[in-house]
Amino acid sequence: MRIEIICTGDEVLTGKINNTNFGYMSQKLEDVGLSVIWGTTVGDDRKSLLEAFRLATTRADAVIVNGGLGPTVDDLSQEIAAQAAGVELVLNEEWLAKMEGFFTRRGRTMPPNNRKQAMLPSTAEMLDNPVGTACGFALDIGKTRFFFTPGVPRELRRMIEEQVIPRLLARSGAPVSIHLKRFHSYGLGESHVDSLLAGVETLDPSGGVKLGFRAHYPQLETKLTVRGTDMDDVRRRLAPIETEIRKRLGNFILAQDDETLEGNVLAALAKGGSTLSVVETFTSGGIASRLAALPGAEKVFRRGIVARDLAQVLDAVGVTTVATSITCEGSEAVAQAARRQAGATHALAVLVDLDEGADRLDLGGSIHIAIATDRGVEYRLSRILGGRDWVRLGAIELGLDCLRRFLFGLPVDERTDFEKKP
Amino acid sequence: MRIEIICTGDEVLTGKINNTNFGYMSQKLEDVGLSVIWGTTVGDDRKSLLEAFRLATTRADAVIVNGGLGPTVDDLSQEIAAQAAGVELVLNEEWLAKMEGFFTRRGRTMPPNNRKQAMLPSTAEMLDNPVGTACGFALDIGKTRFFFTPGVPRELRRMIEEQVIPRLLARSGAPVSIHLKRFHSYGLGESHVDSLLAGVETLDPSGGVKLGFRAHYPQLETKLTVRGTDMDDVRRRLAPIETEIRKRLGNFILAQDDETLEGNVLAALAKGGSTLSVVETFTSGGIASRLAALPGAEKVFRRGIVARDLAQVLDAVGVTTVATSITCEGSEAVAQAARRQAGATHALAVLVDLDEGADRLDLGGSIHIAIATDRGVEYRLSRILGGRDWVRLGAIELGLDCLRRFLFGLPVDERTDFEKKP
Repeated sequence: MRIEIICTGDEVLTGKINNTNFGYMSQKLEDVGLSVIWGTTVGDDRKSLLEAFRLATTRADAVIVNGGLGPTVDDLSQEIAAQAAGVELVLNEEWLAKMEGFFTRRGRTMPPNNRKQAMLPSTAEMLDNPVGTACGFALDIGKTRFFFTPGVPRELRRMIEEQVIPRLLARSGAPVSIHLKRFHSYGLGESHVDSLLAGVETLDPSGGVKLGFRAHYPQLETKLTVRGTDMDDVRRRLAPIETEIRKRLGNFILAQDDETLEGNVLAALAKGGSTLSVVETFTSGGIASRLAALPGAEKVFRRGIVARDLAQVLDAVGVTTVATSITCEGSEAVAQAARRQAGATHALAVLVDLDEGADRLDLGGSIHIAIATDRGVEYRLSRILGGRDWVRLGAIELGLDCLRRFLFGLPVDERTDFEKKP
Repeated sequence: MRIEIICTGDEVLTGKINNTNFGYMSQKLEDVGLSVIWGTTVGDDRKSLLEAFRLATTRADAVIVNGGLGPTVDDLSQEIAAQAAGVELVLNEEWLAKMEGFFTRRGRTMPPNNRKQAMLPSTAEMLDNPVGTACGFALDIGKTRFFFTPGVPRELRRMIEEQVIPRLLARSGAPVSIHLKRFHSYGLGESHVDSLLAGVETLDPSGGVKLGFRAHYPQLETKLTVRGTDMDDVRRRLAPIETEIRKRLGNFILAQDDETLEGNVLAALAKGGSTLSVVETFTSGGIASRLAALPGAEKVFRRGIVARDLAQVLDAVGVTTVATSITCEGSEAVAQAARRQAGATHALAVLVDLDEGADRLDLGGSIHIAIATDRGVEYRLSRILGGRDWVRLGAIELGLDCLRRFLFGLPVDERTDFEKKP
C-alpha cells in the first residue's frame, strides 16, 4: 500500500513549530510494516491544500492529513476535503454533543466557533478523538482513502494508534497481529550491533520478523517488527529471536520497550530497599536530574553533590585529604564518604578530568567512576573524546550504566565502542 | 519569490531520523524575509526524486534540495539533477583536489567511492562546503533555480547561511541588508507579548520591520526582521523599535540574540568576581546542569546540592533546625548556610513543595526561592500548575530568572503569566 503524509499549517511550513508529527507517524507505520512513499508540507492556504490533495490521489492509496481541524478561520481541512471530494459539509450531531459535553464537564460553555469542528464532509466516517475537540475523519477522494488527524501531538498519537493504523492494516490485508519489540542498549555503535545481529531475522524462516535501528546518542534502539496471524503466533516467532538477541548483545541491553535506563536503576534500588547518593563534577547535575525527579525517587534518591573543583568535592563530602588530581583512591574515598554522609546504602561518584582549552572535536575527558556500598567500592576509569557536550553526555550515560550493571550483578568495566584507552 | 524545500533520504522519509533540517531552513529563510510555499519529502528512489524535481519546477522559482550528496550508491542527487536538467555529469577537478586535501590532512587516502562526490552536472555552479566532502551545487531545471545541499546538519547550516541565502536574496531583488534581532523573555505568554507589542512595527513607517515569535516553554523568543538598503539603514530603522520593545517588555527580557539566561547569569557573577552555590529539590539538578557545565563556570560555580527530602537538604547544608515543611525562614536559612558552607558570595535555593498524587494536568508545586549574599536574603514564593514536567521546568526557569533579576538589580518578585497565587 502506497501511503502519503500531508502536514498542513503555516507554523509547520515556516518552521515556527518543529514538525515532530511527520517522523512520529512515519515510524509508527514502519513499526507495523507499512511504508510512507511521499511527504508533503503546505500552509493554511486553500489553493495549496487542494492541489496537495489532488496530487496525493495520483500517487497514493492512502493519505494521512495532519492539522487544520481547529476552530479558527485558518483551519481549512474539512472545507477543502469536502471540496476535493465534491461533497457538502454537514453538521455531525454526535460530535457536536460530544464537544458540548467536553466543555460542560469543565464548567464552561462551548464558544460558538467550536461548532465548525463538527462540520464534516457528508461522506466522511468519523474518527474519535478522546482527548480534544478536533474530530478526525476518513473519506475517499477519487480512489484514495484520506485520514484527517489533529495537529496537537497528544491528540494525533491517540488517533493514529487507535483509529488510523487499524483501518490501514485492514485495508492492506496485512496479518491480524503486529508487535513491536524494542531493546535499548548503550556502549555499542549502530554498525557494530548491525553486524553482531547479522542473520538473526532468518531464525523466523517465514520472514515475519523485520530488524531496524534508531540511534539517539548515547543510546541505540534495536527494533523488531513481528507479524503473525495472532498474538500467540507473534510470541512464537519472537521468542527464539529475542533469546538470540539477548545472547548476542548481552550486558549491553539496558532496558526494553518503554523502560528507561534511569527507571531501571531506580527500580532496582527501590526493590532492594536501597538508597542512593550521587557526586558529580563536569556532568553538572546531569546524573541527578535523570534520577531524582522520577516518581518514587523521593524514597530512594538521598543526596546529589555537584562541584567543578576537586577541593569543593572533597570538602562537600568531608574528605580531608589534600588532593590536586583525581585518582582511583580519591574517587573511591569520595564515593564512600558521600554514602556515609547521606546515610545511603549506595553512592555513585562520577568525576571527570576534562581536557584543557577551547571546545574542539578531539577534546576529551577522563571519567573516574566509583560505586560504593557497605561491602566496598567498585572503580572504573574510562576516556571519552568528542568535544564538551559529547563528553558530558557520554559520562552521564556511562555513570548510570555502570550503576545499572553493578545493581544487576554484571561487570562494570566491560569496554564500550565510545571510549579510548585512558 | 516562491521557494520549495525538498528533503530526500530513506532515513528522513521513514522517520528514522527526525528531520530538523526542514524547520531550520524554513526559519532561516523567514528570518531574511523569504517564504517557503511547499515542502516535499521523498526517499532515495530515482523515480520519486525525478518526479519531485519535476513537480517543483511547476510551482517554485527556487528549490532547495537537502541530502543525497554522499559517496554511497543510495546518494542520487547529482545523478537525478543531471537527468532532470538534461545534461551530463562531469568531474569537477577543483572539488576532487579539495577532497583529496581533506583526506591528506587527516593522514588518510581518499577512498575511491568519494570520487563520486566530485561528479557534478555540467551546468552546475559549485557551492562550497568548508566542513565536509559533500559538494553543494546550483543549477537550472527548466526556469527554476535548484540548490543542492548536504544532509549533515552542521554542513547544511554553513552552506545555507554562506552560499544559498545570499544567492536567493540576490535573485529576489531584496534590499542589500537584512538583520534579525532577537529578544528572549520568560514570564509572559505569547499572546500577552503579542498584545503588549501591538503596533510596534509601525514605528518604521516604510514597513521594513517584521515582528514574529517562537515559543519554547518556558521561554519566548521575539524576533524582528529588519530590511534596509545597508547596515546603517537597518540600524536606523531598528533603533526606535528596539527601544520601544525594551520599554514594553521591561524586566522580562532576559537575553538577546545568541545570549542565554544561564550565560548571562554566569557572566554577571564572573564580572563581579562572585561565586555561586545552589540548593535544589524537585528540580533535581536541572538548575546546576544549566550553569555548571558552561565554559568559565569552573571559576564561578562552587557547589550544588540536590535532595528530594527536606531533612536531607537541611543536613547537607548544616542547618540543625528540625523542620517538617518548607517556609520562608527555612528557605532563607538554607540559602545562607549553603553560601557560607561553600565559601561562595551568592547562593540560590529553589525548594519545591510538590502536590501529592499521580501526575495530572492540574498537579502543581509551590516554589520557594531564596537568594543569599553577605548583605542578606531575598525570598520569593510562587506556585506553578501543569503536571510534573511543567512544574519542574518552570521552577528551573523561575529560579534562574530570579537570580538574573537579583544580579541586574531588578525586582525578583515581578508576577509572571505562568504562576498562580500561592
